[in-house]
Amino acid sequence: MSKYVYSFGGGSADGRADMKNLLGGKGANLAEMANLDIPVPAGFTITTEVCTLYYENNQNYPAELEGQVKEGLGGIEKVMGAGFSDDQNPLLLSVRSGARVSMPGMMDTILNLGLNDTTVKGLAAKTNNERFAWDCYRRFVQMYGDVVLDLKPKSKDDVDPFEEILDNKKEARGIKYDTELTADDLKDLVSEFKAAILEQTGHEFPEDPMVQLWGAITAVFGSWNNERAIVYRKLNGFPDAWGTAVNVQSMVYGNMGDDCATGVGFTRDPATGENTPYGEYLVNAQGEDVVAGTRTPEPFENMSKFSQESYDELTNFATKLERHYKDMQDYEFTIQNGHLWMLQTRAGKRTGFAAVKIAVDMVEEGLITKEEALMRVEPNMLNQLLRPIFDADEKAKNIQDKGLFAKGLNAGPGAATGRIVFNAPDAVEWKAKGEDVVLVRIETSPEDIQGMHAAEGILTARGGMTSHAALVGRQMGRVCVVGCESLQIDYKKRQVNAGGKVLKEGDWISLDGSTGEVMEGHVTTKPSEVLQVLLEKSMKPEDSDTYHTYAKLMEWADEVRKLNVRTNADQPDQAATAIAFGAEGIGLTRTEHMFFEGDRIDSVREMILSDDLVGRKKALAKLQPMQKDDFAGIFKAMDGKPVTIRLLDPPLHEFLPQSDKEIDALAKDMGVPVEKLHTKIEQLHELNPMLGHRGCRLGLVYPEITEMQTTAILEAACEVKKAGVDVLPEIMVPLVGHVTELRNQEKVIRKVAADVFAAQGIEVDYMVGTMIELPRAALTADEIAEVAEFFSFGTNDLTQTTLGISRDDAGKFLPIYVDQDIVEADPFEKLDQVGVGQLVEMGVQKGRSTRDGMKVGICGEHGGEPSSVKFCHRAGMNYVSCSPFRVPIARLAAAQAVLEEK
Amino acid sequence: MSKYVYSFGGGSADGRADMKNLLGGKGANLAEMANLDIPVPAGFTITTEVCTLYYENNQNYPAELEGQVKEGLGGIEKVMGAGFSDDQNPLLLSVRSGARVSMPGMMDTILNLGLNDTTVKGLAAKTNNERFAWDCYRRFVQMYGDVVLDLKPKSKDDVDPFEEILDNKKEARGIKYDTELTADDLKDLVSEFKAAILEQTGHEFPEDPMVQLWGAITAVFGSWNNERAIVYRKLNGFPDAWGTAVNVQSMVYGNMGDDCATGVGFTRDPATGENTPYGEYLVNAQGEDVVAGTRTPEPFENMSKFSQESYDELTNFATKLERHYKDMQDYEFTIQNGHLWMLQTRAGKRTGFAAVKIAVDMVEEGLITKEEALMRVEPNMLNQLLRPIFDADEKAKNIQDKGLFAKGLNAGPGAATGRIVFNAPDAVEWKAKGEDVVLVRIETSPEDIQGMHAAEGILTARGGMTSHAALVGRQMGRVCVVGCESLQIDYKKRQVNAGGKVLKEGDWISLDGSTGEVMEGHVTTKPSEVLQVLLEKSMKPEDSDTYHTYAKLMEWADEVRKLNVRTNADQPDQAATAIAFGAEGIGLTRTEHMFFEGDRIDSVREMILSDDLVGRKKALAKLQPMQKDDFAGIFKAMDGKPVTIRLLDPPLHEFLPQSDKEIDALAKDMGVPVEKLHTKIEQLHELNPMLGHRGCRLGLVYPEITEMQTTAILEAACEVKKAGVDVLPEIMVPLVGHVTELRNQEKVIRKVAADVFAAQGIEVDYMVGTMIELPRAALTADEIAEVAEFFSFGTNDLTQTTLGISRDDAGKFLPIYVDQDIVEADPFEKLDQVGVGQLVEMGVQKGRSTRDGMKVGICGEHGGEPSSVKFCHRAGMNYVSCSPFRVPIARLAAAQAVLEEK
Repeated sequence: MSKYVYSFGGGSADGRADMKNLLGGKGANLAEMANLDIPVPAGFTITTEVCTLYYENNQNYPAELEGQVKEGLGGIEKVMGAGFSDDQNPLLLSVRSGARVSMPGMMDTILNLGLNDTTVKGLAAKTNNERFAWDCYRRFVQMYGDVVLDLKPKSKDDVDPFEEILDNKKEARGIKYDTELTADDLKDLVSEFKAAILEQTGHEFPEDPMVQLWGAITAVFGSWNNERAIVYRKLNGFPDAWGTAVNVQSMVYGNMGDDCATGVGFTRDPATGENTPYGEYLVNAQGEDVVAGTRTPEPFENMSKFSQESYDELTNFATKLERHYKDMQDYEFTIQNGHLWMLQTRAGKRTGFAAVKIAVDMVEEGLITKEEALMRVEPNMLNQLLRPIFDADEKAKNIQDKGLFAKGLNAGPGAATGRIVFNAPDAVEWKAKGEDVVLVRIETSPEDIQGMHAAEGILTARGGMTSHAALVGRQMGRVCVVGCESLQIDYKKRQVNAGGKVLKEGDWISLDGSTGEVMEGHVTTKPSEVLQVLLEKSMKPEDSDTYHTYAKLMEWADEVRKLNVRTNADQPDQAATAIAFGAEGIGLTRTEHMFFEGDRIDSVREMILSDDLVGRKKALAKLQPMQKDDFAGIFKAMDGKPVTIRLLDPPLHEFLPQSDKEIDALAKDMGVPVEKLHTKIEQLHELNPMLGHRGCRLGLVYPEITEMQTTAILEAACEVKKAGVDVLPEIMVPLVGHVTELRNQEKVIRKVAADVFAAQGIEVDYMVGTMIELPRAALTADEIAEVAEFFSFGTNDLTQTTLGISRDDAGKFLPIYVDQDIVEADPFEKLDQVGVGQLVEMGVQKGRSTRDGMKVGICGEHGGEPSSVKFCHRAGMNYVSCSPFRVPIARLAAAQAVLEEK
Repeated sequence: MSKYVYSFGGGSADGRADMKNLLGGKGANLAEMANLDIPVPAGFTITTEVCTLYYENNQNYPAELEGQVKEGLGGIEKVMGAGFSDDQNPLLLSVRSGARVSMPGMMDTILNLGLNDTTVKGLAAKTNNERFAWDCYRRFVQMYGDVVLDLKPKSKDDVDPFEEILDNKKEARGIKYDTELTADDLKDLVSEFKAAILEQTGHEFPEDPMVQLWGAITAVFGSWNNERAIVYRKLNGFPDAWGTAVNVQSMVYGNMGDDCATGVGFTRDPATGENTPYGEYLVNAQGEDVVAGTRTPEPFENMSKFSQESYDELTNFATKLERHYKDMQDYEFTIQNGHLWMLQTRAGKRTGFAAVKIAVDMVEEGLITKEEALMRVEPNMLNQLLRPIFDADEKAKNIQDKGLFAKGLNAGPGAATGRIVFNAPDAVEWKAKGEDVVLVRIETSPEDIQGMHAAEGILTARGGMTSHAALVGRQMGRVCVVGCESLQIDYKKRQVNAGGKVLKEGDWISLDGSTGEVMEGHVTTKPSEVLQVLLEKSMKPEDSDTYHTYAKLMEWADEVRKLNVRTNADQPDQAATAIAFGAEGIGLTRTEHMFFEGDRIDSVREMILSDDLVGRKKALAKLQPMQKDDFAGIFKAMDGKPVTIRLLDPPLHEFLPQSDKEIDALAKDMGVPVEKLHTKIEQLHELNPMLGHRGCRLGLVYPEITEMQTTAILEAACEVKKAGVDVLPEIMVPLVGHVTELRNQEKVIRKVAADVFAAQGIEVDYMVGTMIELPRAALTADEIAEVAEFFSFGTNDLTQTTLGISRDDAGKFLPIYVDQDIVEADPFEKLDQVGVGQLVEMGVQKGRSTRDGMKVGICGEHGGEPSSVKFCHRAGMNYVSCSPFRVPIARLAAAQAVLEEK
């Protein structure tokens, strides 16, 4: 018989921490804590497998489940010494989701389950607190009505039906706060809530606790497929097939009186990574009050005011957990009448700054190995360490001039400046129009995640460091300031008031996520500390802890990785940046980018518009010295590192204007009749330019272009070598599909090389290779390797042709494909390993079958995307090449690839 | 030591007929004839290997060659009893090219080699004919000057320098014909020719026969790479690497007097295939006079007038040769002073009609097996049997009204009607503009081949059935009438006069290539006999010999082949035609072709322009009954044979107008604001529509389209089944790259099917499958086969994506690629077996690894191209599908594929 239910509590458990896939993160860690003898309220976990079966079987549960749940319930009753449905001593339960990774706020939760008109009296008697019992009952009916029976506002503009009743009651009673409601008020509310449920949903609120329990379990499984959970999974790339577990657990209460509290903590600072206990608590409150951000909690620093003993016990448990898990923990706790219960623990979400610092610190503390540290940082997180910070002078001046607009909690570090929007759809829309925006909300909720994704920064008036805004913003790497209590936000007027100053929608605002400062206006940013050390040289390495931890991690990554990391760069300054980030060469220089600079485009156009070879050669002769200077600059910057230069790739019509106005102007400039220009442009027009006259097809029809570019490359190489700098040019022929194409172009290149070397009186080592960016090239890589001295996979074009998808036109269906799970991810972002990957592996293997040990790399956008970098490692490539700012990411991913193989 | 020279003559030879690759066709057959004891002038063959080495080694010969040539020369002297350079009894030689396949007139030849100022006197004495000797010498100097020393007209308008001297001489002497020149005149001419050579080329005419010989050998090897030979190889798809052999052979003379003759013969009629000796001869002439078409020869029928004995001997040898080679032979002979010499034999070129008839007759005669017969017909030749002939009534009326314009020799059967052009470049140019043309020439030469290729028909004033025009025209399958002596052609005035009637450039003319009749004006054509029997039913099978032989060959092909042959058809009448040609099902019905019919396009446009699902469904509901009727018609025509129907494939913008004028009109018709229409068209515009929103990507975004089409297909199937006709619909989802796409569409289709069957109260067997037309589909065919019940390779799109070449845009480089041997052939015509072929093989194998014995076919244009059909057989496909007229070709190619495997 399959085991679907795993119990925990009373110092032991069926499960373990390593059963996350089956029990979810929360369930596995509750089991582990119970095994560690850390006090957790007893409970059981219904496995993720049940979720999967439930959806596979038309939303039916496996037959064995009911019996196992009953058995689990019996276990809880035994450990907690209370009875489910017991009139005198009722056991109350929480029912929560728990997927294998945390999806904060995405799925549903039910608390206080087990209360009804009978058990509420037992609870009142047992706790000797009638008001408390009825407050629990009121909360339960409200939550159950909302989550299970679906009585909720239908749109954002509707009022919550329960809140409406509550507000009416308070108004009738002439009171302001919930806490002022009496036990009788709460009794009234329970009746009114039940009546509203029946009237508006047609369902009776169930009095039977077992019916309540099954309703809640089904609602939690159901919430796996609610819209916001689906969106969240898309954004994070989690498969739908994982499913969630459901945790049914005994309630404990932080709101039974002033000797009660509830809170959340991190074993280290999740924003900075500092090794200090970090957390928040609320006295006499339920956990949801902390997370929802409706009350701003107290920081741990103040907890001695509540109970030094509890604080010591808590930090002891926290330390025990961190040492056990060897990672920074995020935990929840409740103190019920002075008794501390740990409710959950899990690896804490953290910023990129914190991830790097914690990983490096833990190695230095001897807690983990370097290899473990490398695996702890998601490579894309390194982005955050490279992101701008404010210019200190400008920021100081702004504050001096205008005064600080507000100050909140520094929940997500970094500097953001943007225009104010007040809701998520606006953030998405403005961003799409190219605006930088800051999303300003009283508090955020799961509905806001797409808007948070679109914003540069997030600012909330309420909520603590562990509120939704803080957690999600941090995870997304957004600059985030929360709990900024001085803000008065008026959604209707679309304005925010702080200390009398008013900012409106569209006004500029600037957030310092590292300090919590909020400034009016646009404050100029400047490079991150890492960049100040590496690029600007305006900061000494020893003055920046961020740089120290970054450099350590990179050093360890470099010790481990086998892949080289190169960069895609078309200019000497880009090359210099990439070298600072650790690039070991250039994997792709696109020569055509240089064609657009200054008035070169005139010569390019002259070449294109020439009717004959003589005219083309004349125009090319003008371009040649300019191209030579470009290459010389890059060779100097790379100082002996290999430089791969791709010959002209785009179709010629890309260099001609398209609008009638521009065409007229060009005709005048060039002294060509307008009609002739129109005719030429029409002749060059292509139905499918992606598959048209481009790449080496240009060099084959116009060998003079190849000749000019090769001359420029090799003259530059000779010049730089004469100046005493090593050069390693690799000339790359694009869009080869047949070895005959490459053979043709190689002949042109070798001939030019011989001529240049003879004229210069010096020789330079150089290679001739090709892009593998057409399926046919991969399929016939063995033939192509007869000529090519190296391969570079152009996975952008290879993806377009292998999948038959034009990147430029995919907008009409690819987003729908991602939404509907037709593709796992945008194949232009993450390499399609199943399809395109086969061709890449085939290309590497076939190429090397002809040319043993051949140098192979990748220069598509995928070269800086972690999962694709790891694929390249497994495929046996020598290097990946990516844009300069992705070089550190690629270095780390390459190291992880090695470690993952072990 | 390598053997580069193979001797033959005197009843034995070093070589054999099966050494064609090494000795060339001519050389191998000369050797074979010598071995058969058929009298051939002694000689030797320098192998094709020497040609290859010569070009590989910078035009140098292997060292051993000189000695071997000397030795070969000694052998000839011995057999022929004459000496090279011998003053008294000089051996004279011919030096000819000879590739492994015949390339008539493409390469150079030198005759009478060995004559100089000394040996000419010996020849005169030996033959006792001074004039003959000097005529030989004159011809030799002229030919050597032209071919070896390159003294020839530089352009078509220039006069031949030798002809100019000759004409001057005749004018000075007041005579009209060459034959009136005396020995002294010829002596003068030799001197003047030599002087002209020296003056115009700077080279002295070589007196040393050995120098002459090496000059001639080198010229022949050189002619392998002359422009017309290269063009010819391109047109016929022969690789450049084959090279030519050189045959050095003793001269024999058909021009020594009236007991001499020369001619060419076929063992059967090469135009019709009739089993009668067929040939032509000229008395007192050299072979070149026959081939060049300068004199129109006598037919064999008249040969008894010359010598019955020689004729009997000749036909005896011919029969011996045909029986030996078991194929129709094309031979050359010379009768020197009553002694018959056979100069060469080879398989004769023939028309498609003759090829089929000869193959079938030879089986019926017991000469070859059915299998051999199947291998004798190049599948594309079957085209000719399906080509139009004239409507007999209209032709009779034309002749009655206008009189016959002219009558020539029926060199290439079929009916052609077109507008007159007088030179090859015009033929090419007019054809490119879409005109049907008939090329009218006094005689054709190798320079004309591209024009001949462009023309529907070829008409010449001079030359016999074995003239250049006849040979090449026949091989190309062109309608051809030659030797039409009554024509007076004036190139300058661009007109042709026959019996006083004048036709000018651009006038219509009609040729009956089966009778030799030439008519003025446009005579309507009608279907070939095969079509009259099969389709029109206007002719009884037993009345057509053409049909008889066609049907026999097809019957044998069907016995042998394993591949099924289907057709691509969108209409019931196309389906009927294909069935008549033997189609066993429909492999591709393109549903979108129906979208353009009548006023359906209005509903299609309404659907596209709808803003919402409701609007789209409304428009689709209008299309559905029309589509249903289309499918019902096809199902009826196919009568139980399988029908593969492809769901909508092209991007929606293809159904919208593009020009402003049309857009305005449409907006008015549709009652939509013009701006809205423009906006919609702009929204739908794609940069690379080939890789855009099309294929199943439409069905995924607009499932209502898939629903409508499936409903129409299955309702039609139910309707036809109810009427008692079997139906086998195969619903094909296009452009699948991910199994998830197919899974999505399959779900829609299955749901609709269940609904339709329920509503109709009847079920129909149907299959759901997919096109494999993207590289990713082939690469993941194992996954896709989890859902697909069949695969159909769309090799058009698969070629576009695998090679990254847009068929629509390839015009700018693909012709250059073909010219420069970058690609072996246009990959859209012949399947690229090396590249695309790998994906096809992979797709078949992977698909069947998941779904054992899965049905697999091809529906791209390649399905009717013989080499591609054979590939499909080898790849293990179940069927090929092609356009109706290519079905017989595919049947034959499929049979050959089986035989080639043996």
